[in-house]
Amino acid sequence: MADDSQRNEAQFEQDEDDFGPNAELLAQIDAAIDAGDSDALNASLEPMHAADIADLIERLAAPRRRTFLELYARQIDGEILSEIDESIREDVIEQMPREVLAEAVREMDSDDVVDLVEDLDQSDRDQILAALDAGDRAAVQQSLAYPEYSAGRLMQSEVVTAPEHWTVGQTIRFLQSEEWLPEQFYHVILVDPRRHATGYVTLGRLLASRHDTMLRDLAEDSFRTISAYAEEGDVAYVFNQYHLISAPVVDRHDRLVGVITIDDAMAILDEEHEEDILRLAGVGDESTINDTVLQTVGQRVPWLGANIVTALAAASVIAIFESAIAQLVALAVLMPIVASMGGNAGTQTLTVAVRGLATRDLSRSNAVRVVRREVTVGLINGAIFGVVMAGITMLWFGDPGLATVIGLAMIVNLLVAALAGILIPLALNKLGADPALASGTFVTMMTDVIGFLAFLGLATAVLL
Amino acid sequence: MADDSQRNEAQFEQDEDDFGPNAELLAQIDAAIDAGDSDALNASLEPMHAADIADLIERLAAPRRRTFLELYARQIDGEILSEIDESIREDVIEQMPREVLAEAVREMDSDDVVDLVEDLDQSDRDQILAALDAGDRAAVQQSLAYPEYSAGRLMQSEVVTAPEHWTVGQTIRFLQSEEWLPEQFYHVILVDPRRHATGYVTLGRLLASRHDTMLRDLAEDSFRTISAYAEEGDVAYVFNQYHLISAPVVDRHDRLVGVITIDDAMAILDEEHEEDILRLAGVGDESTINDTVLQTVGQRVPWLGANIVTALAAASVIAIFESAIAQLVALAVLMPIVASMGGNAGTQTLTVAVRGLATRDLSRSNAVRVVRREVTVGLINGAIFGVVMAGITMLWFGDPGLATVIGLAMIVNLLVAALAGILIPLALNKLGADPALASGTFVTMMTDVIGFLAFLGLATAVLL
Repeated sequence: MADDSQRNEAQFEQDEDDFGPNAELLAQIDAAIDAGDSDALNASLEPMHAADIADLIERLAAPRRRTFLELYARQIDGEILSEIDESIREDVIEQMPREVLAEAVREMDSDDVVDLVEDLDQSDRDQILAALDAGDRAAVQQSLAYPEYSAGRLMQSEVVTAPEHWTVGQTIRFLQSEEWLPEQFYHVILVDPRRHATGYVTLGRLLASRHDTMLRDLAEDSFRTISAYAEEGDVAYVFNQYHLISAPVVDRHDRLVGVITIDDAMAILDEEHEEDILRLAGVGDESTINDTVLQTVGQRVPWLGANIVTALAAASVIAIFESAIAQLVALAVLMPIVASMGGNAGTQTLTVAVRGLATRDLSRSNAVRVVRREVTVGLINGAIFGVVMAGITMLWFGDPGLATVIGLAMIVNLLVAALAGILIPLALNKLGADPALASGTFVTMMTDVIGFLAFLGLATAVLL
Repeated sequence: MADDSQRNEAQFEQDEDDFGPNAELLAQIDAAIDAGDSDALNASLEPMHAADIADLIERLAAPRRRTFLELYARQIDGEILSEIDESIREDVIEQMPREVLAEAVREMDSDDVVDLVEDLDQSDRDQILAALDAGDRAAVQQSLAYPEYSAGRLMQSEVVTAPEHWTVGQTIRFLQSEEWLPEQFYHVILVDPRRHATGYVTLGRLLASRHDTMLRDLAEDSFRTISAYAEEGDVAYVFNQYHLISAPVVDRHDRLVGVITIDDAMAILDEEHEEDILRLAGVGDESTINDTVLQTVGQRVPWLGANIVTALAAASVIAIFESAIAQLVALAVLMPIVASMGGNAGTQTLTVAVRGLATRDLSRSNAVRVVRREVTVGLINGAIFGVVMAGITMLWFGDPGLATVIGLAMIVNLLVAALAGILIPLALNKLGADPALASGTFVTMMTDVIGFLAFLGLATAVLL
């Protein structure tokens, strides 16, 4: 931490504003929208990257987005369309003239078409599929047959393959004569006569080798295939763990059905992180900064509702001790401190556990050791802050009994926080649930209830 | 959310355990360590990927790791060494025989050597640099001259370049005759006579084109250079935003000094997320699941210390109203509910804001609109849960005055939560600080203090 705080942003010369459109260009775009001038708008957007245009569309408020699309919908191509966030893609599609949409879809890789149509209703989906030629349509339909969030949905069917007995020279001649090749490809995948993927050769190796070398002699050690039924999170993990650039996807019979490239794996990694962080905070995991008020309320109310239930549980613990509080109001003053420290310590442990599970650094092989560590840390932190709070209470209220009680309650609650923070996510994970999803609510309920119970209970037993 | 909860892990056929070493292999490894049998250990580890071996080493408890290294240190190569987490790398290096370390370092790409030595002390660093040949040493020293966390530190100096007036045939002949080429490369970077990067050609395009085509006619539209002084987080953003696979790095005079590939950008993206999530939870951002008890206590105590200060601030607000509580103990029962709901709502807003800033979805162009949305959402949620709590309070205590007071306090506190949750991270960002770093503490302090103040203050004014 000390190390990171030394990062001085000023020393870096290229900052956020050097990427994407600059302020002047944004002002021109704004003016063009205001003036309803579609020629000026097109001219301003022309030099922009599709990803930046998509971001611009996402950031517009809904009514202004409609105005924008009235001026610009005819210019939206496949690249822009695949960059637009799912949350507003349907709105955009609706405003695109049918022939423009059809043209855009025809330009897209099969994996991008799958991503586009999988969330549409049947009639919109059929309309888009109808725009494709038969081969592309079959590829998209094959992908859609795999479960949502599977490798089969992520892959593109456009694959460059060669028999393993070919030479480098043969392969290069084949690539030069082939009319159609994917936009981006990094490997030639080796296949046997039954279309089983048996290895791959990087293009760099292909280019650097003598023409008479056999492809099978250039195959990479790092070769591994991905099942079309693998979960997309596992796909992202494999790419990140093994530094893959692209990986062949195979069906149940080990036959090659497609390929996944690292840029898609990177996007999934990004999404999975996003989900974790939003779930930990109790926000719907599809929230974006561009959602409307109603969408936002809809995402957050369920979590606040769950929280009110846990808060009521904590309140009913307090209610048991009403007469103790009436006798010694200092209890009411101090009790939130015990609960709050427990909540914080629990969140710390929980976050480390959820991250560890997500990155697979926390696994069966070290779970027992991690639990033991968290319990020890909980006891040590409990002792430290127990002493601190006992000291503060002594200075504030001059009551040694009260000081002892809060010190003990702090130790109990930080121990409970550690246990809840590590055991609840481990249990949810074991049950096949996402540990990020509901852990926070459970952990805080534990630390609130036990915090109040330990402090008020001990006070009643010792002081009154 | 509804959509995601339907994800049933059972439908995916390849799960976590299909990647990395299986349980049987792990048992063999454990047995070999116990028996002190280095041949058996080598045999078990032989089929494993370097990244999995590194993970295995990380997961061992410190004393067992020493035993492991006594048996295995001679087998550690450059690949394993570059996969090992910074937190334990120094321990590993210390146990490696000097000649094994020297050999490992000579195998590594320059960017991995930079990553290895940048955290070592001067004498260890010198020792490692001495093992390199002069050319590699110069490359590493050039990288180390750039600031920490800059693109210059991330890049590798091994670059494949060609003059833009070359033809495809010339380039392929050059690549075939070149003795040394990087392990992985995906583009040929075009340079002018003064070594300015002017474009790049993907290897796929090179292979698919006629031999007499000029390289400059094959250059990609997506070409963009990265300043060696750019921050690594910005580098990850650019790769993710523009789907880059590799990007040339240039110095202040726009001269080509290296190249960054997407696998490094993906690792940075992963680290930045990790930092955000750990900072939001108030855990030192270098925590790992494998830290010792003392390291863990050291990371967490500062944050718990900050929390105790904010909890004391909240307690002193309660202390002002001691006599009100003594008269009406129900206030003590209900007050944590108001504070807890505020804390939750504040965390929700905060998390969405921190994520939005990290992904650059929240920027100057939509900040005002987002603030307005959060305030509106805060008021609506306040109204919803104000009514809910008023109803519950009425049922529980049968006191319409108390019910009104808690309803109003809830509205006030959820409004404050929204304001604090969005304005505090925006302010920290504006000041050049990381909004994930301290926002949580500030936001909770606001919602605790205002929660107690609004509820107890209103109660005193209205009820007593």
